[in-house]
Parts: sequence; C-alpha cells; structure tokens
Amino acid sequence: MNDYQFLNVELKDSVVRIQLNNPEKANALNGQMWKEIQQVFQWMDEEKKVRVGILSGAGKHFCSGIDVTLLFEMSQGLGEEPGRRSEALRKKILEFQEAFTWIEKCRKPVIAAIHGACIGGALDLITACDMRYATEEAKFSIREIDMGMVADVGTLQRLPYLTNEGALRELAYTGRNFLGSEAAHLGIVNRCFPDEKSLHEEVEQIAKIIAEKSPLAIRGLKQVMLYNRDHSVTEGLNYVATWNSSALLAKDLADSAMAFMQKTKVEYDD
Amino acid sequence: MNDYQFLNVELKDSVVRIQLNNPEKANALNGQMWKEIQQVFQWMDEEKKVRVGILSGAGKHFCSGIDVTLLFEMSQGLGEEPGRRSEALRKKILEFQEAFTWIEKCRKPVIAAIHGACIGGALDLITACDMRYATEEAKFSIREIDMGMVADVGTLQRLPYLTNEGALRELAYTGRNFLGSEAAHLGIVNRCFPDEKSLHEEVEQIAKIIAEKSPLAIRGLKQVMLYNRDHSVTEGLNYVATWNSSALLAKDLADSAMAFMQKTKVEYDD
Amino acid sequence: MNDYQFLNVELKDSVVRIQLNNPEKANALNGQMWKEIQQVFQWMDEEKKVRVGILSGAGKHFCSGIDVTLLFEMSQGLGEEPGRRSEALRKKILEFQEAFTWIEKCRKPVIAAIHGACIGGALDLITACDMRYATEEAKFSIREIDMGMVADVGTLQRLPYLTNEGALRELAYTGRNFLGSEAAHLGIVNRCFPDEKSLHEEVEQIAKIIAEKSPLAIRGLKQVMLYNRDHSVTEGLNYVATWNSSALLAKDLADSAMAFMQKTKVEYDD
Amino acid sequence: MNDYQFLNVELKDSVVRIQLNNPEKANALNGQMWKEIQQVFQWMDEEKKVRVGILSGAGKHFCSGIDVTLLFEMSQGLGEEPGRRSEALRKKILEFQEAFTWIEKCRKPVIAAIHGACIGGALDLITACDMRYATEEAKFSIREIDMGMVADVGTLQRLPYLTNEGALRELAYTGRNFLGSEAAHLGIVNRCFPDEKSLHEEVEQIAKIIAEKSPLAIRGLKQVMLYNRDHSVTEGLNYVATWNSSALLAKDLADSAMAFMQKTKVEYDD
Amino acid sequence: MNDYQFLNVELKDSVVRIQLNNPEKANALNGQMWKEIQQVFQWMDEEKKVRVGILSGAGKHFCSGIDVTLLFEMSQGLGEEPGRRSEALRKKILEFQEAFTWIEKCRKPVIAAIHGACIGGALDLITACDMRYATEEAKFSIREIDMGMVADVGTLQRLPYLTNEGALRELAYTGRNFLGSEAAHLGIVNRCFPDEKSLHEEVEQIAKIIAEKSPLAIRGLKQVMLYNRDHSVTEGLNYVATWNSSALLAKDLADSAMAFMQKTKVEYDD
Amino acid sequence: MNDYQFLNVELKDSVVRIQLNNPEKANALNGQMWKEIQQVFQWMDEEKKVRVGILSGAGKHFCSGIDVTLLFEMSQGLGEEPGRRSEALRKKILEFQEAFTWIEKCRKPVIAAIHGACIGGALDLITACDMRYATEEAKFSIREIDMGMVADVGTLQRLPYLTNEGALRELAYTGRNFLGSEAAHLGIVNRCFPDEKSLHEEVEQIAKIIAEKSPLAIRGLKQVMLYNRDHSVTEGLNYVATWNSSALLAKDLADSAMAFMQKTKVEYDD
Repeated sequence: MNDYQFLNVELKDSVVRIQLNNPEKANALNGQMWKEIQQVFQWMDEEKKVRVGILSGAGKHFCSGIDVTLLFEMSQGLGEEPGRRSEALRKKILEFQEAFTWIEKCRKPVIAAIHGACIGGALDLITACDMRYATEEAKFSIREIDMGMVADVGTLQRLPYLTNEGALRELAYTGRNFLGSEAAHLGIVNRCFPDEKSLHEEVEQIAKIIAEKSPLAIRGLKQVMLYNRDHSVTEGLNYVATWNSSALLAKDLADSAMAFMQKTKVEYDD
Repeated sequence: MNDYQFLNVELKDSVVRIQLNNPEKANALNGQMWKEIQQVFQWMDEEKKVRVGILSGAGKHFCSGIDVTLLFEMSQGLGEEPGRRSEALRKKILEFQEAFTWIEKCRKPVIAAIHGACIGGALDLITACDMRYATEEAKFSIREIDMGMVADVGTLQRLPYLTNEGALRELAYTGRNFLGSEAAHLGIVNRCFPDEKSLHEEVEQIAKIIAEKSPLAIRGLKQVMLYNRDHSVTEGLNYVATWNSSALLAKDLADSAMAFMQKTKVEYDD
Repeated sequence: MNDYQFLNVELKDSVVRIQLNNPEKANALNGQMWKEIQQVFQWMDEEKKVRVGILSGAGKHFCSGIDVTLLFEMSQGLGEEPGRRSEALRKKILEFQEAFTWIEKCRKPVIAAIHGACIGGALDLITACDMRYATEEAKFSIREIDMGMVADVGTLQRLPYLTNEGALRELAYTGRNFLGSEAAHLGIVNRCFPDEKSLHEEVEQIAKIIAEKSPLAIRGLKQVMLYNRDHSVTEGLNYVATWNSSALLAKDLADSAMAFMQKTKVEYDD
Repeated sequence: MNDYQFLNVELKDSVVRIQLNNPEKANALNGQMWKEIQQVFQWMDEEKKVRVGILSGAGKHFCSGIDVTLLFEMSQGLGEEPGRRSEALRKKILEFQEAFTWIEKCRKPVIAAIHGACIGGALDLITACDMRYATEEAKFSIREIDMGMVADVGTLQRLPYLTNEGALRELAYTGRNFLGSEAAHLGIVNRCFPDEKSLHEEVEQIAKIIAEKSPLAIRGLKQVMLYNRDHSVTEGLNYVATWNSSALLAKDLADSAMAFMQKTKVEYDD
Repeated sequence: MNDYQFLNVELKDSVVRIQLNNPEKANALNGQMWKEIQQVFQWMDEEKKVRVGILSGAGKHFCSGIDVTLLFEMSQGLGEEPGRRSEALRKKILEFQEAFTWIEKCRKPVIAAIHGACIGGALDLITACDMRYATEEAKFSIREIDMGMVADVGTLQRLPYLTNEGALRELAYTGRNFLGSEAAHLGIVNRCFPDEKSLHEEVEQIAKIIAEKSPLAIRGLKQVMLYNRDHSVTEGLNYVATWNSSALLAKDLADSAMAFMQKTKVEYDD
Repeated sequence: MNDYQFLNVELKDSVVRIQLNNPEKANALNGQMWKEIQQVFQWMDEEKKVRVGILSGAGKHFCSGIDVTLLFEMSQGLGEEPGRRSEALRKKILEFQEAFTWIEKCRKPVIAAIHGACIGGALDLITACDMRYATEEAKFSIREIDMGMVADVGTLQRLPYLTNEGALRELAYTGRNFLGSEAAHLGIVNRCFPDEKSLHEEVEQIAKIIAEKSPLAIRGLKQVMLYNRDHSVTEGLNYVATWNSSALLAKDLADSAMAFMQKTKVEYDD
C-alpha cells in the first residue's frame, strides 16, 4: 500500500487518504501516476479494512491536468501507418478512461477535496468521485479546448449529472476558469470552504460518518446509485428489489433495528 | 372514497385532498396504510371528477417513514428456506414499490405539501409526486442507511431528476437531516414557506390553477413528461408527435383557441 | 444568405447573427419563418466561414410563439377522414420538430439572446440552442396548456437537461409566467443581465471567444456532448474514444501544443 | 379455480391445463374470456402447487381471434368527443395487452398446444407463451390487416424473437394463412405433429419433465430469460449475477449436487 | 417521376417498379445512382398513388456493389489535413447511409427481387427493404472485407434481424459467396425461385395483394414494426396502443368490419 | 504462451489453436482452467502475430462443464454472514463471466470446433465465440437446471442471438440433450460434420481464409458487429461511420483497391 511513486496513501480508522504527490509539477498526470491511480482504487476495492477514501493533492494545487510530456511520449509510440495509429490511439484513450473509471468500480465512496488548480484531466478525475468539496478559491477549467481537442477522459460524460447542459456547454466551449464558489453554485462541487483547513476538517468529518455506517449497505448504495444513473426509474426499481432480496438478509439490518430500539450504536463488520 | 382507515380523503372543486392519518404514530407507514395509498391513487386515476390531488400529513408530521412493526411482520412471513425466502422478499419489495408508483400511473398531477418530519419511506413517497412544497422547518432524511440497508422504494431512483448526483450521494451515505430550506435550494422541493398556513394556501392555489386547465391536456402532459424522463430527446419527440396526432383533434384545442381570441374563459369537460 | 423574408442574417468575423424579424407580430412563428429557421441552420452547418451563431429577435420581443393563423391553416389542410387526418397531423408535427432540431444538427454552437416575450413555441426554439442568456425582465411561459394542448416541439423533451423535474412540472401544468431572473435561477438560461445592451455585449463576447478556438474541436465538442446527453456514461466514453481516435490526429492539436509552449496564439483553419 | 365461464381449468400433478372453452364460436375472444385469461394466469402465478401450464382450445379450433361483437361493444362505449374517445381507446388497448402480458408475468412456464384455427388475436395470445407446439394442419394468420388495422396486442412485438423480420413482414402485410408445418419451419412454433393426439402426448410429456425440476430454478429461469430478451448481453450478465447471489443459496442447489453424486432423484419443494 | 438517369421507374395499379439501370456496369452504385435512390424513395413516400414498391436490377445482375470510381472521386475530395479529412469522410458515409435508410423512412413496403450478382453495397441496399426474394442462382457476398474495410452502409446493422450471429460472422469475415438457396435457408431472403420469370411473377403477386389492403393500415404496420425492431416488447406495446388510439378511428376499420360481415371487398382510399 | 497447465496453445501461420487439456476429466472447468482461459484470450488480443483463434478440446470431449469440486471450493470460501456471503458470491460469478467475455473483448475472431460432450458451462464458453462448428454426434445440453440453478455465465444471454426464443426456452427448461445436427438446424452451430477429421479440416480452412484478410479490418469487423448486437440500427450506423472515419484512412484500403484492379493478392501487415 505504500509502494507508490506519485501517491501518498495512508489508511487510518477505516478511512484511506490518497494524495496526488508530485507537487513540483503541480501534480500533473504523468504515465506512472495514471497507472498508480488505477492500482490504488483496485486495492481500495479489495482491502476489507477500507470503508471510504479521500482524494486530494499535495502542495499548492490539486492537479494541473495531463502532463504534456505524456502527450509527446504517447504520440511517438503510435506507429506510422494511419489506420493502426488510430487503432493504437483509441486503445490508449480507453486505458486512460479505465483508470479513472476504477474510482466508480471501487465499491466504496471516494470524496475529492480540492484546492488550488483543478484543470483539464483533473476535472475528469474528480467527476468520477462520489462527492466533491473545494476551497472557495480553487480554480477549475475544462481546458482541453485550448489544446484544440475534445476532452475524452470523463468530464463531458459525468458533468451532466452534476450541473445543467447550458452551463456545461459554456464551460466546455470557452474553457474559461471558474472558482470553487461558482462550482458549488453549479452543483459541480457539493460545498466550498474559505480555506484548506476548514475544507479538510469537513471532509474528514464526512468520511468519519460514512465509515461508521454498515459497510455492506454503503457498498450496496454506491452500486445501486451507479446503476440508477444509467437506467430508467423502472429498471432501477427492479434492480434494487433484486439486490435487496439478498442484501436484506444480512445481519446488519437486524443489528441496526435492534440498536435503533435500544438506542445503542452498532459496530458493523467490514 | 371514505372507507380508508389511515387516510382522510376529501374531494371538492375537482381537487382531492389526501391526508396520511395516523398522527399518534407520526403517520408511520404500516401495511394497511401502504395498501390504502395504492387504492386511493387507483381511484383518483379512474374518478372523472378529480383533476388534481394534494398529499399531506395529519398532525405534527408529514410521515416518519416505514413502521418498524411492519418490518418485523414482513420478516416473519418469509419462510425458512433461504432461496424461497429471498424470492418472497423480492416480491414484497416490488409490491411496496408498485403502491408508490401508482402516484405516477395516476394520470392526474399529485402535489405533496410537507411539514414536520419526512423521513425514510416518506421521501420515497414524495419523490413519486409531481411537485413538492414544504415548510422551511420540515425535516428530511434518507434514513435507510441507519437501518443498515439500501433504500429500495424509489428515493434513489427518482431523486436524480430533482437534484445533482453529488448532493444525492452525500445525503444517502450520511443519512443526515436537511431542512425544507436546503431541500428547496437543492431542487428536492419546489419552494418552501415560513409556516404551514402559507404552505397550504399556496398549494391550494396551485391546485386550483391546474384544475381549471383542460383535464385532457393535463393528463396528456403528465404522461408525456413521464415518458420523456426515461427516454432520449429523439424518442420523446417522436412519442409526443404520435400522442398529439390524436389529442390535437380534441374539442379542447378549438375551444381554447376561440376563447383566446375572444378573451373569454373555457369550462372544459372532465 | 440574405434571401430570408422573416430573418436577418449577418456573418462577420466567423460569427453569424440570426435575428427573427417580424417585429409587428412580435416575431410570431408563421409557416414561412419556420421553414427559414430550418434553412438558415442547414446553411450554417455547411458554410465553412461560420464558427458560431447568435439567435435573437428584432423589436420589443424575442418571440411570442406560434402564430395562431398557422394553426388555422394547418387545421384546414388535414382532410376529413379521421385516420388520414391524424396521419397528416403527425407528419406536420414531425416537420415542425425537425426544423428546430436542425439547431442541434448544425455542428456549430448556437447562442440564444433573449429579451421581451419568449412564449410557447419560442421556448421550444431556445431549448434547442447550446446556451441561453436573457435580460432580467424577459418573460417566459410554457403557454401551450392554455391552448388546451401538450407542447410538442421540444420544450418538454429538452428542459429536463436544464432544470429539475419538479420545476418543469409546475411551469408546464400552470403555464405561469417567469422572468429572466427566475429562469437563470432554475438553469433555464445561463445568466441574466439588467438590460439588452449588456446582454448583447456579453453574448458577443462569448461568441468571439468560441470563434477563436479550433473549429474542428468545437464541432467535435458539440456532437460529443449531444451524444452524451442521450447515452449512458459507459457508452459516452466509448464513443469519444472512437471519435478522438481520428480527431486527435488533426493538425490543431500539434499547433495548440506548440503555441502553449511558446505562449503564442494559434490561427486555426475553418 | 373452477369458476370460469369460458375456460376449463384442471390442475393435476403440478401441471395446470387451461382450455379456451367456447367451442360453438371457435373460442373467439369475447370480453369475459379476456378477463378470465388475466385472472387464470394471475392465479397460476400465486398458486404454489402449479409448476407449469398448458394452454389449448376446446373443440375444433384453438381460437379464431377477437370476437367481432366485442369490437362493436367497445366502439360504443368510447363517447363522442374525439380527444376523450382516443384516450379511452388507448386505455382499452393497454388493458387487452395487460391481460396477455400476464402470461409473461406469471413466473411459471406456459406451453401452447395449437390445433385448428389460430387467427388474429389468437396469435397475440400464443406469442406471449413460453413455447408453442402445433398440429401440422393448424392454420395461422396475422389477420388484422384484413380488418384495416395494425395488430396491437403483442404479435408484432413478440414474433421478432421467434422468426426473422422478412418473414414477419410478409405475414403481416399479406395476412396470408400458414400451416403448422411452415410455422415450425419459421420458428413460430417449436415443432409440429401429425395429429392432435401426438401433439397432446408430447406437450404433456414436456410439461411433466419441467414439473420435476426445481420450481425455484424454473421460476428464476423464466424471469431471467425475459430480462435478457429486452436487455443487452452486458446488462443480462450483471442481472443474473445479482439474481443468483441469493438464488444460489437455496437448498435446491445443494440437494441437486448431492443427488447428482449419489445418482438419486430430488423431490423439490414448490 | 421519369427524370432518373440510372433508374427505371414505372407506376401502375398502385405498385411502383424501380429498376437499377446501368446494366453495362452491372448496375454498380455510382454517385448519381446513389442520389437517385434517395430521391425515388422520398418521392414514393409522398406520392399518394403508390402503395408498394418493387426494387430490381436491369440486365444480368441485380447490382455489383459500389462503383470503384466513386471511391476514387470520394477519396480525392476529402482535403489534406487529417482531422478535417476524417470529418469529411464521416459526413460522406452518413450521407450514403441516409440514402438507403430512406427505404425504411418511406412509409410503404419495398420488396427486393434479386437475380445475378448482389455484392457488397447491394447487400446494404436490400437489407433496408421490407422483404427480399431471389433466384436460386443469385450470388451474394459481403465483399467489403476484400477491400480491406468494414462494411458501413447497413448490412452489418440490419442482417442480424434476418439471420443468426454465427452465420453473419462467417459471411462477414470470409466474404465468401453464397447463393439464393443458402440465403433463403439463412433467412436473408424470404424465398428463392428457379428462374427470373417465376421470381417476378411471385413478387408481382405479393405486391398486388399488399396494394389491395388498407393503405393507412399498411403504412402504420411498417412504422410500428420498425419501431418494434429497435425497442423492447414493453415499449413496443405502449407505442402501438398510442398509435392505434387515433388510427383505429379511421374509416378503414368500420368499412373492413362491414365488408367482413357482408363478405364483400373494400376499395380503400389511398 | 506455453505456460498453461490445462491448455495447449500453438501459434502457426497467424492462427492460434487453443485446446482445453484435461482429458481424464473430460476437460471439466476447474478454477485454474478458468483463469487460464482469461489469460490466453488477453494474450491473443495483445499478440500481434495472432489473427484468428481456434478453440477445441483434447481427448474424447470438448468439455463437460464446470468441475463439481470447483463448486464445493467456491461454496466454502464465501464466509458465514448471509449478506457478505451473497456479496462474495456475486463477485465470484462476475469473475467467471468476465473470463469468458474476454473471448469477445479479444479483437480477433475465435472459432469453436466441438466434438463429444459440450455441457453446461461449456455452452456458456462456446456462445462467447464468433462461430461454432461441430460433429454431427456432438452432444449439447443446458444442464444447469438439473443442478437446481439458473445458468449464469452467458448461455442464456448469448443464445438468443443464435436461435429463436421458443427453442431456447425448451432447451433451458428441460435441460435435454441435443446433437450437433439439431444444433446446426437451430443456428446454435454454423454447420456440422460427419467426423472430427472433416470438422477440423473445415475449421482450419476457414481460419486460414480469415488470416489472409486485412487484420485491421477483421479487428474492426468484430468490434463493430459486437456493438451492433447491443444497439439499435440507427446507433449502429452512426457508430460505424465514426469508426470508419479513421479506419478508412488505413493503407489496407488503398492496397486492396490496387490489388483488386491488378488482380494480385495483398500481404497485409499485422
């Protein structure tokens, strides 16, 4: 769990703190970091002791987006023949997407705590998290348009579930900056805070609350809400009924009901 | 229409007022009440004189969610063999869902007027309504997580059409309380009011306005908007064109056009 | 490009300004104007020199909705036999929808600038645009319910991507007026401005910014975001990867990267 | 179970035989029979002793389709105003569909045994069954086109899962007769037999085999296959995994495995 | 209707015969022919006198697929810059697809009568028709693989509704020839005939039968079956109920019912 | 490529032959073999020299389905608490499914050559292949029902694309055996052969033909056909247009066109 070159990972009291850690480069996403992001969320999914995760950035910024040197490396490894070049490029993009999608596949909630810059690929990253909190002065931008390209690692797919289409299009077409306060107003982050300290205190507090709930129910919640996002209401209702036909037989429900009546607190198994 | 044990039902001037009525138990949803909810909305769908409905709670609270004794009864009726137990449980959940879904199947708009507590199953109930209005101090919570379970009667499926995914996940994971004012800010209720009196005055006023419109068009609107919710824009456009190919031949359109030009008011048939 | 009877069309600096122009009738949508709207956006899609469009209304109002005389003409051309009458009506509605859908099919962004009345069919029109900006006093209404009919040219299908279901239903059932300020609060317009002058200055400014971006990337963005609107996240990710497998081989990316490092500005080809 | 006017219903050895019984009218579907069809399959779903059903017709024909007098009755009950008339008609069609869809909702397999005429509405009826067997001389026809109408109770929706689009369109456009032998060739029936006797022997034999399997697994199979029919492979795989996460904990699996190794036979619970 | 350079078009007795007519080139699809195909089916959709169409090829072959010179022309018109070249290519393919899709958009059935070669693009063409009939010796091939490309004008999308996935993949991967007899066995054509004469007699006969049915019902059938192809059973049932809520009010139903009882024949209006 | 315990893997002339190799146990699927199946198809996807694969079984049978000892192992590793037990079971099933789905994810065609028994899990395995060929005497069965369970590794999801629903349900409910000849008749295998020798000769011949085509186009074909299987015709057409907007720029098309005109043969790059 500690063998990451560009991540700090610390697990305490069922909460894992994952920190992008290449502060000299404003935590720009290089090839290695991208791989480690996939690895850490695969690990988080498997590791029973983890119940919730917090994602943040070391240093002055959350993350400045994709490292330009990665773009150059990538461009050179694609070969010459145009058909195979396109095929290789498509495969590469799918790999990048897959890494971030592991935040969703990880059955435990991930909370992003954002300060400083959160640009381009960093937005793709945080939209894959369950919740987002920021400082008022955090600076966001769907910057890809200024590289002459369409963002392709998740921002455009996941932002519609956070804000309205009109706002999304303005931000995507213009690539303009917007601050934590506007992000909160638009629904892109849950709330914003005056400084990093209050941001982290609040995020730690939310993580702690979630960590005390039934881990089985929390894992179920995440998977059921993910299913709902991509299905009709009718489909979603059928799915959760099928899901709960086994999940409701868990000990957690009986223990919770008992605790509810006795006004005690349950210590759930992982 | 008056044979309900746990509901008050009153029809006047094309508006039906449906009141959850078990105030000593904070209108907790017991098995009988659940059945009556399905019955009353089936009746409302059929009864020509009804054009719009208002749903509220008698006493100090709108509704405190599922009655725990119902959970115990249910748990005991499921049998011993695990496979058949799961099958019976799934069927039960589908029945509970079906009751609330009748609010959507009812072709006439249903408006929820919420004060006091609106917890757990009560949220499932109001998300199936067309619009929601609350007092500022009304207290909401997706409380199921504290019973160690995933909510399964509609809240998780229908809230995404009212608020953003980030807010939904925070509320579902933490189960925290939120007031009418926050609910209005998040889009979960349309508006909130300082007290019960102003809440009910406004809701009555909205119901009255809707009751004066063409009932045929109002029923069409509800069904078309429901279809849109679960389909793409292209699908929705095709559907409404097919719908209106017969609906536009109704007398209501001609009468309305005439009234528009003569600046008179139409009395539409039910 | 200038042969329109009810539109003013002016192209300058890659931005086309399209103005509904029948101010004596508050720019009501007659049959000819409807045809011209389809034509102008088909032209805008094809014309390489155009990168972005602004849609507004001449005179005191943006647009007062469908011209009642059009309804009468239409009604008379449908024949007598009820089956064929319905068939002809359905075809007509599909044609009206198609005209507005060309705003989406046009691969370049269209920005609506709204002042005065924006009623009924005019709402259908602006919801098909990419972004919407209004004066604070602009007056909106989903007025169709007062004609005894279900709106069928796009408002009900596209508004759910701008605001929440609860608000949509209130506005659709009651047909009540709402101002630019409320529209901005609900997400129906991006922002509102104290007067027409500041509205148009801001809209021109946004159009200018978009016109300076890579037109290829902007066209890609619009098509990819449209695809996302109607598909799941997984589908959307796969699609943009396939899209970018060719689009990323464009000169625009290399030029932008170079300019980024040299801190210069790119002049992109159309 | 025996209170049906137009159905013979007999339950023996876990198999229920349901016979359309109005032979003087070639079992034409009148209003009462339609209601009874819905009732009998609702009962069959609930009644634990039933594991599989056989549907056939008394007398010389399986069923000659909708009774024309039903069409006349229906037409008269719709009212005069065109808009409300269409609305009532739509509701009526949905009710007719719902009755046949109960064959699918019934969690136990239904086998159709067809001889003589199987025309119009009768085809709608048998396509909702799980399997179909016929005599070689049974006579089928999608006859609705000869009434100047589009079939609307299921044939057009369900036949594509039995035969290819080209054959379906020929049969639907021309309304021509086709015999049991061609129906078998096209996949519309599973197999055909030289006479009624051999037909019924084989169908009884298949029903007996199914009745000896685990009823829990058979019910699961039907529901899972129905889900698959309307979903992608990926969706179907996810669903069955969720389904089996509880179903595989049933006693039936352990008992079967034991019997498999001991080469004995299991007597499953209902 | 006669101004086509590469099509023979003849309308008699409500049936239009459309013949690909460039026999020296085996009716290879050049740019002009492609345009005319779109035009003729748009015309066929509009022209009230047409009730059904027959598509065949003049000379020794039905059609040998895309004309290679068209590929060269196309390739040269795409420009140099890779990004814009891809964009132009995509647009071109969509245009080619659109032309053939007009066979589906045309609300009247189209029957393909195939003899001689039916290769590559010709298969794309016939799969968009409602039914297909061929001579036993007609020669088919999904030839695109031998051009080093994936077929992109409809064959791969529409064949799955005619034959099974295993057969489709064998034919697509190997590009091997298959005769009319195998095509009939696989469901790709409805039936095959020993010679051209018997083929055309049968196809004329089927067209005649269809032309005598209610044109309104035939047009409805085509649109409803097309809808079913792309939707679930539940969706399809809801759609046809909505469709028939107006279509069943047509005179055709009453006339047909009357004729049925009086054993006379109806002459339907176009 | 040779480090498999239960697989023989041989690559020659661009064709890889993969043989299930545990003949003493009739190639029953144990835990290790399941892992190796996933590995070999992941490797096949990556390895440039492979263009097509053949899957067969060593010894007297193709494969007798899941090894019962695997079921026992699995059952024991799931823990005691019912909720977590279900969760672990669901995860396990998803893993089993994922292994077979890699046959689809592998971008190169896989051909199954089947002799002897092909039972239960073996059917799940071959339905994930592109094509299937068998001996006349090969013996198939959807045997899961006799274990008191619903098949959950792909048979029920993928068979509907090979045969009709009626046949599928009969086979799934009864679990009866069916031979290669019936499988061919039903579309479940492409063709059957009198003996193993002729089976393998034909399969090798088909593999050889595919291996000589453009590998880029073959990989594209597989992915596009997979996409079509799960999408509507309209979606499929849009997708292949986007796909070919880059794929058609490949050298393979130009080389093929040149070879076509010069009547030579192309040696395509991997």
